[in-house]
Amino acid sequence: MNIAVFGTGVVGQTLAQKLASLGHAVTIGTRNAEGTLARTDRDSQGRPPFKDWHTANPTVKLAAFAEAAEPAELVVNATNGGGALAALQAAGQDHLAEKILLDVCNPLDFSQGFPPLLSVSNTDSLAEQIQRAFPDTKVVKSLNTMSASVMVDPRLLPGEHNVFVSGDDVDAKSRVTALLVSFGWATAEVIDLGDLSTARGAEQMLPMWTRLYGALPTPMFNFHVVVGEGAPQS
Amino acid sequence: MNIAVFGTGVVGQTLAQKLASLGHAVTIGTRNAEGTLARTDRDSQGRPPFKDWHTANPTVKLAAFAEAAEPAELVVNATNGGGALAALQAAGQDHLAEKILLDVCNPLDFSQGFPPLLSVSNTDSLAEQIQRAFPDTKVVKSLNTMSASVMVDPRLLPGEHNVFVSGDDVDAKSRVTALLVSFGWATAEVIDLGDLSTARGAEQMLPMWTRLYGALPTPMFNFHVVVGEGAPQS
Repeated sequence: MNIAVFGTGVVGQTLAQKLASLGHAVTIGTRNAEGTLARTDRDSQGRPPFKDWHTANPTVKLAAFAEAAEPAELVVNATNGGGALAALQAAGQDHLAEKILLDVCNPLDFSQGFPPLLSVSNTDSLAEQIQRAFPDTKVVKSLNTMSASVMVDPRLLPGEHNVFVSGDDVDAKSRVTALLVSFGWATAEVIDLGDLSTARGAEQMLPMWTRLYGALPTPMFNFHVVVGEGAPQS
Repeated sequence: MNIAVFGTGVVGQTLAQKLASLGHAVTIGTRNAEGTLARTDRDSQGRPPFKDWHTANPTVKLAAFAEAAEPAELVVNATNGGGALAALQAAGQDHLAEKILLDVCNPLDFSQGFPPLLSVSNTDSLAEQIQRAFPDTKVVKSLNTMSASVMVDPRLLPGEHNVFVSGDDVDAKSRVTALLVSFGWATAEVIDLGDLSTARGAEQMLPMWTRLYGALPTPMFNFHVVVGEGAPQS
């Protein structure tokens, strides 16, 4: 499958690398490909510049958002939340129409420091904002409740744990679920929460995620929904 | 221990019954004890009137908020979120000062139907609102992320799962943890998230809880935080 991954950060890199390893044709989308490759300094968290990662992962292409989206069947939004709508607008309605948009990012606002606030919450979600802005695109929210390394390699953690999917298009959710299974998720670990408004639940997990990251203190964890025996199953 | 449980609903009833079964002297606090006992109709969810429960649980007293709080060492806020501050104000600052207030309730706003919204979220929490209004009280947030039956009998669910505690007073959190252990929680299942502002994380779990309740569809579930082997532990 031809897949565009929007976002050059650790989430975009991790997803792009995994998707390429599974044989997909992957292009990372960015605002300005030349500018992204020209950066030589480490980022605010001390990670090496994108070009180092790109040199080590030559099968993943880098292109402007529109160029990455045009041939893609599936677009992954792995931007930081604040830049999501601008990135998708740069890609263009036509290049996103009728496609699945897998939204893995969170509307985090770091302006007050850590832990971040949610810039959208409670009465709305970033996933719904994107769906309203791109009504012909099939938005599926998933994977936003865990670290990038767990997203693509769930067996790094012991035992069962869960990934959530939310979306209005049942077929699009099925295709995202198949992708998750290709990452190593068991089908029974994928919980379909329902329509896209349920992304409000998934995005509002982040305030707990950030506190757990502080308390444990490691990002190598995930949520397992333990259900009573004998209780009805979905 | 003398314990006041504020709230006559299913959460208050379940906690009061468990605490009484453990030998504590328990008084349920309500706005108007006579009025509460006079009700004969089922509630909006079809549950029998409080007096039926009270007849079946004669060791639990019923009293006005102030009368219940005065002799109590520990006060449990199991009101509905909207009524929490009014109930505590009716109890009075003096009757709550220097005591532990275990806040198990969520600031749910059902005015838009189900799933409810949070009336406080993201930049604040109900627990912090209570702490600001009662600065001499030791507020501990816990148990708000699960059904009442799971709160008091965690072994109803298979395997490990977790309960969170948040609070500014370390000794108060220790005493609440001891109470949780007396309910059947393993010490390792109790996750201390940190200061009371971490209650924002716990309260914002509710939007996910309500969606899972819809998707599973059962309230008999809880969250287990699965941590990577070799990752640092708290």
